Amino acid sequence: MKNSNKLKIIPLGGMYEVGKNLTLVEYRDEIIIVDCGLTFPEEEMLGIDVVIPDISYLIKNQEKIKALVLTHGHEDHIGAIPYILKKIKMPIYGTPLTLGLLENKLKEHKLGEVDLNVVHAGQNVKLGKMEVEWISVNHSIPDSCALAIKTPLGYVYHSGDFKVDYTPISGEVIDLQRIAKIGEKGVIAMIGESTNVLREGYTMSESKVGETFNRIFSNHITNRIIIATFASNVHRIQQIINAAENFNRKVVLSGRSMLNVTETANKLGYLKVKKGTLIDIKNMDKYDDKDLVIITTGSQGEPMSALTRIAYGEHRRIQLTPNDIVILSATPIPGNEMDVSKVTNKLMEVGANVIYETLTEIHVSGHACQEELKLILSLVKPKYFIPAHGELRHLLKHASIAEDLGIGRENIFIMENGNCLEISQKDAKFVSDVPAGNILVDGLGIGDVGNIVLRDRKHLSEDGLIVVVVTISKSDGKIISGPDIISRGFVYVRESEDLMDEAREIVKKTLGKCDSKSITDWSTLKNNIREDLKGFLFSKIKRNPMILPIIMEI
Amino acid sequence: MKNSNKLKIIPLGGMYEVGKNLTLVEYRDEIIIVDCGLTFPEEEMLGIDVVIPDISYLIKNQEKIKALVLTHGHEDHIGAIPYILKKIKMPIYGTPLTLGLLENKLKEHKLGEVDLNVVHAGQNVKLGKMEVEWISVNHSIPDSCALAIKTPLGYVYHSGDFKVDYTPISGEVIDLQRIAKIGEKGVIAMIGESTNVLREGYTMSESKVGETFNRIFSNHITNRIIIATFASNVHRIQQIINAAENFNRKVVLSGRSMLNVTETANKLGYLKVKKGTLIDIKNMDKYDDKDLVIITTGSQGEPMSALTRIAYGEHRRIQLTPNDIVILSATPIPGNEMDVSKVTNKLMEVGANVIYETLTEIHVSGHACQEELKLILSLVKPKYFIPAHGELRHLLKHASIAEDLGIGRENIFIMENGNCLEISQKDAKFVSDVPAGNILVDGLGIGDVGNIVLRDRKHLSEDGLIVVVVTISKSDGKIISGPDIISRGFVYVRESEDLMDEAREIVKKTLGKCDSKSITDWSTLKNNIREDLKGFLFSKIKRNPMILPIIMEI
Repeated sequence: MKNSNKLKIIPLGGMYEVGKNLTLVEYRDEIIIVDCGLTFPEEEMLGIDVVIPDISYLIKNQEKIKALVLTHGHEDHIGAIPYILKKIKMPIYGTPLTLGLLENKLKEHKLGEVDLNVVHAGQNVKLGKMEVEWISVNHSIPDSCALAIKTPLGYVYHSGDFKVDYTPISGEVIDLQRIAKIGEKGVIAMIGESTNVLREGYTMSESKVGETFNRIFSNHITNRIIIATFASNVHRIQQIINAAENFNRKVVLSGRSMLNVTETANKLGYLKVKKGTLIDIKNMDKYDDKDLVIITTGSQGEPMSALTRIAYGEHRRIQLTPNDIVILSATPIPGNEMDVSKVTNKLMEVGANVIYETLTEIHVSGHACQEELKLILSLVKPKYFIPAHGELRHLLKHASIAEDLGIGRENIFIMENGNCLEISQKDAKFVSDVPAGNILVDGLGIGDVGNIVLRDRKHLSEDGLIVVVVTISKSDGKIISGPDIISRGFVYVRESEDLMDEAREIVKKTLGKCDSKSITDWSTLKNNIREDLKGFLFSKIKRNPMILPIIMEI
Repeated sequence: MKNSNKLKIIPLGGMYEVGKNLTLVEYRDEIIIVDCGLTFPEEEMLGIDVVIPDISYLIKNQEKIKALVLTHGHEDHIGAIPYILKKIKMPIYGTPLTLGLLENKLKEHKLGEVDLNVVHAGQNVKLGKMEVEWISVNHSIPDSCALAIKTPLGYVYHSGDFKVDYTPISGEVIDLQRIAKIGEKGVIAMIGESTNVLREGYTMSESKVGETFNRIFSNHITNRIIIATFASNVHRIQQIINAAENFNRKVVLSGRSMLNVTETANKLGYLKVKKGTLIDIKNMDKYDDKDLVIITTGSQGEPMSALTRIAYGEHRRIQLTPNDIVILSATPIPGNEMDVSKVTNKLMEVGANVIYETLTEIHVSGHACQEELKLILSLVKPKYFIPAHGELRHLLKHASIAEDLGIGRENIFIMENGNCLEISQKDAKFVSDVPAGNILVDGLGIGDVGNIVLRDRKHLSEDGLIVVVVTISKSDGKIISGPDIISRGFVYVRESEDLMDEAREIVKKTLGKCDSKSITDWSTLKNNIREDLKGFLFSKIKRNPMILPIIMEI
């Protein structure tokens, strides 16, 4: 059979973008899904909550799916699972913390009866004709793994998200020996993350941040200390707890996701906390500033987050004072820069001392820089290389690094979501694409907001709306009432009465023109009203609101 | 008289923000205005074109205004002038290029008969009891100056925007000797820009970029070269022209503002171009790739700019090919990061080689870093220091640097827009504020879009709109026609017919409840429709569109 011994690699997300990672490894009639993440909407996706991958290919090929295997518990790797599970059932494999975080999510979505299977780094799981091995890596969330997927054509190595940290906070150093061994056995294809590929050198060790915390704590003995970071960065939280314990401070957690993740991590043994260190926020008032550290969400300046509420004086229990040191222990994710600046300035207005990344070494990335990427590529020695998890500029840079290391240009594949790379013993080539794209989630609606709706939202957001209402006699076409004009988001009504009066006259004139002949063509009449009013408003005020003519015929 | 010998400094823009710089220096009954800039709208200012300062204080005190004096020709220093001139007439003083660029602007706004007065660096102008001296500084636009305003209480030194460039492209090195002299004579107050205060060390010289251009040109002899930069960065454009002439390439200009600024700069002698170097874009086809350099606008990824149109294949005359080298010779202004990434990726999709700041030294800032700021503070030796042109985090950092240099904390003033600092021989203190704030410009409307309009636009942008139309009999309150439901930006109508049917039933029920008693209170009825429908839609789809009930009574 022609297709008998061929392997397909199909990314449904994570290519030409940062987020919603989802990659398929397909051998004969079996599919293994690696990760299933979401992404956050771009600026022009007005009103959208989250974006998930198009999985119509998976729905069509349900019976082929052997399992969903997870590298780690970040949103861009597990966030779309609840939405996908509503369409397809499948067994899910992941490390304890990854599944712990997933379970929280499933509960929120009221999804029971999911087939969850815990694996540990170093373990193998046979899934049909393929076999998946979880290999420990370092990253900004514990329990992160790369995956070595054994296929009859050799290994497919999926890097997951990783960095090389020789002095990690908990867990092991990335398992370089095992990665080298897999490389020795033969890797037919490697999918490699590209997040930090534009940065030279190495990413600093997480333990560097701990040193900075200790220095700041020792320099500010009398202040209350507030630290904002990602809830999922359990290592960072551990280091804050360590510093707090060193300096005899109690730790308060603030923000829903901070409480959830910390509880899960604590329960599963990923946090080491002395009895009595963590106190409930309700008991905070019993302690002096000098005895407290608050760990909070909101390091990205998210408008509804705990830190933003603190900054704007809207937090129910935490009031900022000039005796506060606020540490933003995170880098703004691209697109969040302005939100973070705003919160920073707002915190400073109250007089708090704000320490952020530009000023001090208060954050390190969880992703590998160029030298680390070279190291892994050199150990894995893949025949074919697929840079992943990045915008095109990242993918191209990662490709050029792989080329520098001796991988032939013809063996490096820049893939778009939906592209299908077919690999045989002999060669690798692109075959027909499968459907892929963004599915927009707005409230409970999945995929019911598309381009037309977004275009209307954009139009409304820029110049607002004018509704023209008029009642017309069925018998003679004469105006019975109206035209009335209602506007929203267009202009202060109080300041524009003259403009509105003139607009009404324009509509009357348009209606008058049609009056003589019998009106049968409502859409033409509506169009005339729209065009005449549009021309008038643009000439008067250079704005172009959405115009909705409503004609009632009595 | 009590107020007889007092000086006031009043910023109306540029404090707690980057942009719309406008500072008043008031002595007795005389006001000198320094700069009059605009700023671009923040993300939540939906549909707004530009933002200008509130000048009600100036309108109220028109007769006191002696002049508007300009430091340089950037938008955030001259951009609001056309709007302000529609309200107040006043003489304007500035250097030749500054006024040349202003004149272009005045023409666009069809403003004639403006009292423009050219001054050169080193010149003094007596304006009532005060006297203004223009002092040459380095910046990313030629003809930039600091201002030394001589008052009976000593000099007020306004830094303008500046850097210290010992090897500038044209013009002089910043006039450190004169600045030192002014410092020696006695500066009562200094207003200092803070844009780059968070960066350590020195800003590199503009001539560094020229070296990089030459290197890139010599490495890509056969490629066409496209360089995007700010139209106003005449030094940068000069260096591109120099490199083009070195390598025997013709230069094509693309983008309206690039053509305008270059024409003005050329006419005034700020550009040195050999005859025949500049060619019209229409003649571009006569030349090979290797003989061309295109200088274009769009370095900020602006959606309608020439570079964006090139990237998306929508430029009328420039088609991108894999033989193109595109250089983004600029840093994304905060807030523009995502737009710039998008254009970069799009350019790469066609196969062009894109060189941007992360990869190569292809841009330098026009603003002073910490060491330069220290130098100027040390030369000027002001009694009182007012950090300006920055968000609060910048102002505070600049203040702490000034303190490190020995200026007493009590002599450093962090000012908000509208604050009024009153300075006497004896002391300086805050007195009553004057009105200040953002005036939003949308189309031809100045200040007619406020919070209510913006709130409506935001609401519409997130969940769209539902209009409910119903005609009711005046006599018995029975429904004559409707309810009809029209939606925009809410949900695909095709996919939501059931939802709309249910919504109609909800409205009918609400109307039915009111049917029995006589309907006199329209606003209550409308409110009931709104509330019932809102509750229904949120429970069904977790969205909250704007609901506009329209009731016609016949």
